Amino acid sequence: MIDGDTQTFALTLDKFLEHAAKWHPRAEVVTARDGGRVDRIGYASLLKRSRRVSAVLSGLGVQAGDRVGTLAWNTQAHVETWYAVMGMGAVCLTLNPRLTAVQLAAMAAKAQTRVLIVSADLAPLAAQIADIAPTVERLLVIDGELGKGDFAPSVEALEPLLAAANDKDVVWGDFAETAPSGLCFTSGTTGAPKGVTYTHRSSYLHTLRLLQADVMAITARDTVLTVVPMFHANAWGLPFAVPAVGAKLVLQGRHNDGPSLAALINAENATIAVGIATVWLGLVEHVEASGIELPSLKRIVVGGAPLPPALMERIERSLGVTVQTSWGMTELSPSGTFAPPDDPARSAAVSGRPAIGVDLLITDAEGTALPEQRNVEGHLRVRGAAVAERYFGETESATDGEGWFATGDLAKIDTEGNLIITGRAKDLIKSGGEWINPAEIEAVVSALPEVTLAAVIGRQHPKWGERPILLVQTRDHGMISDEALLAPLRDSVAPWWIPDAIIRIPQMPLAPTGKIDKIRLRVEYGG
Amino acid sequence: MIDGDTQTFALTLDKFLEHAAKWHPRAEVVTARDGGRVDRIGYASLLKRSRRVSAVLSGLGVQAGDRVGTLAWNTQAHVETWYAVMGMGAVCLTLNPRLTAVQLAAMAAKAQTRVLIVSADLAPLAAQIADIAPTVERLLVIDGELGKGDFAPSVEALEPLLAAANDKDVVWGDFAETAPSGLCFTSGTTGAPKGVTYTHRSSYLHTLRLLQADVMAITARDTVLTVVPMFHANAWGLPFAVPAVGAKLVLQGRHNDGPSLAALINAENATIAVGIATVWLGLVEHVEASGIELPSLKRIVVGGAPLPPALMERIERSLGVTVQTSWGMTELSPSGTFAPPDDPARSAAVSGRPAIGVDLLITDAEGTALPEQRNVEGHLRVRGAAVAERYFGETESATDGEGWFATGDLAKIDTEGNLIITGRAKDLIKSGGEWINPAEIEAVVSALPEVTLAAVIGRQHPKWGERPILLVQTRDHGMISDEALLAPLRDSVAPWWIPDAIIRIPQMPLAPTGKIDKIRLRVEYGG
Repeated sequence: MIDGDTQTFALTLDKFLEHAAKWHPRAEVVTARDGGRVDRIGYASLLKRSRRVSAVLSGLGVQAGDRVGTLAWNTQAHVETWYAVMGMGAVCLTLNPRLTAVQLAAMAAKAQTRVLIVSADLAPLAAQIADIAPTVERLLVIDGELGKGDFAPSVEALEPLLAAANDKDVVWGDFAETAPSGLCFTSGTTGAPKGVTYTHRSSYLHTLRLLQADVMAITARDTVLTVVPMFHANAWGLPFAVPAVGAKLVLQGRHNDGPSLAALINAENATIAVGIATVWLGLVEHVEASGIELPSLKRIVVGGAPLPPALMERIERSLGVTVQTSWGMTELSPSGTFAPPDDPARSAAVSGRPAIGVDLLITDAEGTALPEQRNVEGHLRVRGAAVAERYFGETESATDGEGWFATGDLAKIDTEGNLIITGRAKDLIKSGGEWINPAEIEAVVSALPEVTLAAVIGRQHPKWGERPILLVQTRDHGMISDEALLAPLRDSVAPWWIPDAIIRIPQMPLAPTGKIDKIRLRVEYGG
Repeated sequence: MIDGDTQTFALTLDKFLEHAAKWHPRAEVVTARDGGRVDRIGYASLLKRSRRVSAVLSGLGVQAGDRVGTLAWNTQAHVETWYAVMGMGAVCLTLNPRLTAVQLAAMAAKAQTRVLIVSADLAPLAAQIADIAPTVERLLVIDGELGKGDFAPSVEALEPLLAAANDKDVVWGDFAETAPSGLCFTSGTTGAPKGVTYTHRSSYLHTLRLLQADVMAITARDTVLTVVPMFHANAWGLPFAVPAVGAKLVLQGRHNDGPSLAALINAENATIAVGIATVWLGLVEHVEASGIELPSLKRIVVGGAPLPPALMERIERSLGVTVQTSWGMTELSPSGTFAPPDDPARSAAVSGRPAIGVDLLITDAEGTALPEQRNVEGHLRVRGAAVAERYFGETESATDGEGWFATGDLAKIDTEGNLIITGRAKDLIKSGGEWINPAEIEAVVSALPEVTLAAVIGRQHPKWGERPILLVQTRDHGMISDEALLAPLRDSVAPWWIPDAIIRIPQMPLAPTGKIDKIRLRVEYGG
């Protein structure tokens, strides 16, 4: 006792909104609505509404530790719901509306979710989920009018309940910082979806990481357009990080298309925009076609999938911004590495260094650390303050004996400590007993200015087992010849890595997270 | 158990140096030596040396929880010692060499310090401390040659011990994150010095706060000249924050004078320099006199005492930098608020907003919260993750019933949430039963371009009790008249606040922390 001590300060997520409400009360959360309208609210008012949502949930019997589902777009009401659920110590299960009712019902049931909060236009999907999932008792509708007669009696609009809610007895943050705050199922590109649990402490520390000048570098003077969906991987932590510094948060609502995003950026003077590369492709195409300018926008942060070099160059040139690359995954809360903002040496291939709190290891296929950790390709493992230890519902650890989590990514680390993702282990193609890495081929082809998106998959072959084929979405509707597409490969990969066939597709299929949907490509073209 | 979980990651300070050594192995720590020489070392090598210091201490019987004293300048060896002591779970007691042997011996004895690590030129002072403090058994000398025959046999040079040390059994970080890491006695401007305990967790969270883009915004591409002494208030946390992002750390060694600092800034291309205002005054005077330029330097961070507006303007103009203001104190680890870097609206009077993890309250003299918290002057209290809860050796809390720590500062908070320090409660002058705030008078007089430093103290008066007098260090040796010094006050303060006398002093006396020494001024001029 005589040692002296510092104050107790629990790392719980409610503190971000409380801080924003007290120190940045008029900084806004802006949500795009249909027809070019927006909703806007200051953090002080948002806090009050959010606490009322807690009161409503409490009235429905929701207690600390219970899972509350959301099936919603990026909107103010969704932010209010996040803080309401997490602030009272319940766990926010974010459901991806691009998945099927069967998939989502399995997640809701596994998490024993009784209450779902859903965007109005997703209420029919939510009703299907409730029909399948036995645990779901109650749907609360946000962001729009409740359709009449379509639903079971357990469906109710949230807004009228808020007006009647009494939040004076609501207590936020009265639980251990290690309590779970969120639950997000991986989209399950292979096997059954796995639930990743986030805790208050892990998401709090992840937020402090994002705010570093060498990471996302958000300041109170920024306006951050968050296109990454709140139903996926914590929206990269932005609904925590943006209020934590009192920046303005702009949410795109239902629409990710180029014209909608351009109009929103200009109307709200967004300075930073965050999302996966395929979203920015739509914005670039609109800007190039319309000649519109985006003078306020300084930086676009991308991640979630390899960024084609030609697309990065095109985004920077067409939008007049710098692109900041990053790497992460759902199990990392989700960020792992960031290239520094405005790095003069930035490159699409490089995903930056880990900030304090994240550590990386290159191993062989069995998980043994390679003796040399720099400039050697291997399997990537990660360890840190916001990395999954155990999936939801599991008793076994998701890490190895030294606490490392196997990402499934192939990577190398350069002399400067920068991470270069070189592929996905499960995407590797085995041809004649040897491995071919599709990501290396894709990187070379994607560097062609005529190429918008490229994907290489294995096609079954009677002699070789598998052979690579190239699927490509070109910029000018196929004006580039097959030979021109393959030519750069002849200098950069082994002759037997050259794809056997080229298939041109007008629109690359995207998975629910916006990444190229290789599962669908394999089903359609791999046989 | 079925909830799922994230990985365990203890917030201990050894992680900063481990991270720097792994991810920024060649980023340097540079120390200025006498005669313009420098020592330089990369973080990877510094980590190895630091672990050897732990081995030496372990060999001397130092265990987790034990206090190890340092009496040293800002040098590489001091950084190595910090991490060695804290990494093994011992507590680093930083002693201020500008205090007396009697004062320092009292601190060492109170902390039951057995081992002191001391800069060679401070060894005589350390020997005096050891003579007085019964607990001190051993002096280890760093940063220079050991003088012959002057000391007791318990004095030894550390460097030869390092060569023989075996660090393979040294374990760092194997303790609770709430364990104490550091101990710093306040300089005791009133009453007995009080020991402020820092914990690993509090200093770790403080570091993450410093790294935010809206706080100190240090990046891996920065070179940070840390003039704030490591013997005071954690050197504002820079020996943690700079390695944590892999920036280059430049330490000034023994010399704070203008020519030494200018030469060091230019030789090492410092981008950010951090210290109290009076240090920068010396640099400004040298730059103005010599015509030298400091092209690499972009920003100077000041704090620790009110910054005279004219001095801020002069620093910016003469050095070609932006000045970033801040407010903090030893009990806050030490930072409280920061104005954003490169804020176009920056002002010497404004100390910025609290970042997440710090909260402020304005109270009356008894500690009751004022009903209005904006634009009203009152007594400042603070609460947060790195704020003292209990002084070393005390059993009673240093906070009130709601967990607020009374800073002793007078302040107001503007509409935007910015903190404006308006004075020190104990500096107030009582004249005719009414209070006069010397800080308000000082701010007005300091705004005169002819004034370098100004201080107002109370002088005993037979009728009024106390009357204010102005002590002033002027820029051009007294070319400004008394009337010109007082003129701006006639428009800004009540007539009875106008000082009764002006005393010109060629060199303002500074306390051991570099602030104006009001205690000495009161002794010399207050009677």
